[in-house]
Amino acid sequence: MKFSADWIASPEALERTVKLPSFRQAVALVNRIADLAEAENHHPDLAISYRTVTIRWTTHSAGGVTARDEELAAKTDELIDVAT
Amino acid sequence: MKFSADWIASPEALERTVKLPSFRQAVALVNRIADLAEAENHHPDLAISYRTVTIRWTTHSAGGVTARDEELAAKTDELIDVAT
Repeated sequence: MKFSADWIASPEALERTVKLPSFRQAVALVNRIADLAEAENHHPDLAISYRTVTIRWTTHSAGGVTARDEELAAKTDELIDVAT
Repeated sequence: MKFSADWIASPEALERTVKLPSFRQAVALVNRIADLAEAENHHPDLAISYRTVTIRWTTHSAGGVTARDEELAAKTDELIDVAT
């Protein structure tokens, strides 16, 4: 499973920004990603600016992007597909 | 009701960063602030980085901090007091 082309990939992080129909839906998406993060014990940086959510996957202990981040970026895509 | 000294106040925004005991509790605090934002129809920027939550109140239409932001910063303090 490969993450989508909607991610900005750098050696440091995978980052995706999504605009939802409402603030409520933005918060709901963050909650679904938080559930995934807890289940996987790997936690992205998350930001909400009104209807816009930014998700940033990186592995601090590795100093950059790992296969785990790529896998969880792809799982995040699935959550976004359901939400939008 | 005055917001606490934990806010970094600039003409542009009021910003406060809080470290919670866990990621779950950080997400829970964001949800409580989101409920406040919806009830007040005024929405801060919110960021979660593992156990750390950053809240930023500003009024985009006014180009900076208004009395409304100060009022909601004080209400955010109350939510943080309950959460920590």
